[in-house]
Amino acid sequence: MNKIITIGREFGSGGRELGKELAKLLGIAYYDKEITQEIAKRTQLAEEYLQAIVENHTNVPFPITVGRTISHHNHGGEYLLNHYTHVYSEQANVLREMAERSDCVIVGGCSDYLLKDYHPFRIFVYADADSKFARCRSNADEHEHLSDKQLRRMIKKVDKNRAKHYRYHTGQIWGNRANYDICINTSSTPIEEIAQALAPLLKSIKKEKS
Amino acid sequence: MNKIITIGREFGSGGRELGKELAKLLGIAYYDKEITQEIAKRTQLAEEYLQAIVENHTNVPFPITVGRTISHHNHGGEYLLNHYTHVYSEQANVLREMAERSDCVIVGGCSDYLLKDYHPFRIFVYADADSKFARCRSNADEHEHLSDKQLRRMIKKVDKNRAKHYRYHTGQIWGNRANYDICINTSSTPIEEIAQALAPLLKSIKKEKS
Repeated sequence: MNKIITIGREFGSGGRELGKELAKLLGIAYYDKEITQEIAKRTQLAEEYLQAIVENHTNVPFPITVGRTISHHNHGGEYLLNHYTHVYSEQANVLREMAERSDCVIVGGCSDYLLKDYHPFRIFVYADADSKFARCRSNADEHEHLSDKQLRRMIKKVDKNRAKHYRYHTGQIWGNRANYDICINTSSTPIEEIAQALAPLLKSIKKEKS
Repeated sequence: MNKIITIGREFGSGGRELGKELAKLLGIAYYDKEITQEIAKRTQLAEEYLQAIVENHTNVPFPITVGRTISHHNHGGEYLLNHYTHVYSEQANVLREMAERSDCVIVGGCSDYLLKDYHPFRIFVYADADSKFARCRSNADEHEHLSDKQLRRMIKKVDKNRAKHYRYHTGQIWGNRANYDICINTSSTPIEEIAQALAPLLKSIKKEKS
């Protein structure tokens, strides 16, 4: 069985950065945006829309792009429910194929739960509010149009939606330590140092987890 | 400022073992039972009694030993409350003195909270129910008189009391990830490997945390 490392993370905590760094140190594949890219190919839905519903359970005011053409529709609740279920099922397929392919690090998308038969090493990354704010602010391009107040509100909102989404699909509480092998607070330790510490541990666990 | 590492842990999760191993790898002091031993000296209360109230918030049916003589008294609720407060205050003094003395690992006793001015690196150790049961069972001497059912019940009870005690004195939720730098699940990773991974990280954090 391949070695699968899943990363759940609070928005702005540096989980993606940690995932990339770990994949680099371990010399294994890294999947993040590739997940929604692949679902987009299979469902003909727009990546931005998928990104929003795959992780954030946002009630996205459509557009759904079909064949990359944007269409605005008023869809009823039932349609939306089927829609979520369809995307989630496709997501499960994509993740399983990734897990079958090779050792890898997978960020987000209920991957710890969807891949539980592969006994992943499950990491949860979090940080305090100020640290997440500072990290988001330093990604200037992405958030420069937001005031400090708006940015703080957005960070809370994204995490709230992630929790809602995770609960909806897994029946579990997002970020509950019992569902992870390790939970790491990045507020006062640089991501690189955390990755350097975890890499040898992750190298050694294959025998335990498979 | 000295490097202080505090360890909170679920009963049977191997937190004490991890603490000892880390102290050995880092070549620094380790405090665990020494805390209640020191409080016992200062308060003239029995260690067993202190152990029960320092961490577990158990409504211990007295004996209090005074000068090592056991006395059974019926004390009112108010007396007991003062008593808890007195012990907790002494505990804070003892922990601060330990933190002032040298770099150290301190297990239990609300140390993460009581030493927050020393910016400790705060570890929380946990495990799933089966793993904790197996670890407790392997300490045969200590629990051999208990049936499996009794042992499982005891593990839950101790953790419940620890949570209650922590909440009572700190106003915080015991084991809430926000209050720790790292939370580690020992269910499927050997303690020694965790210690080996954490030691370099802990060596490097001094500049960050002080």
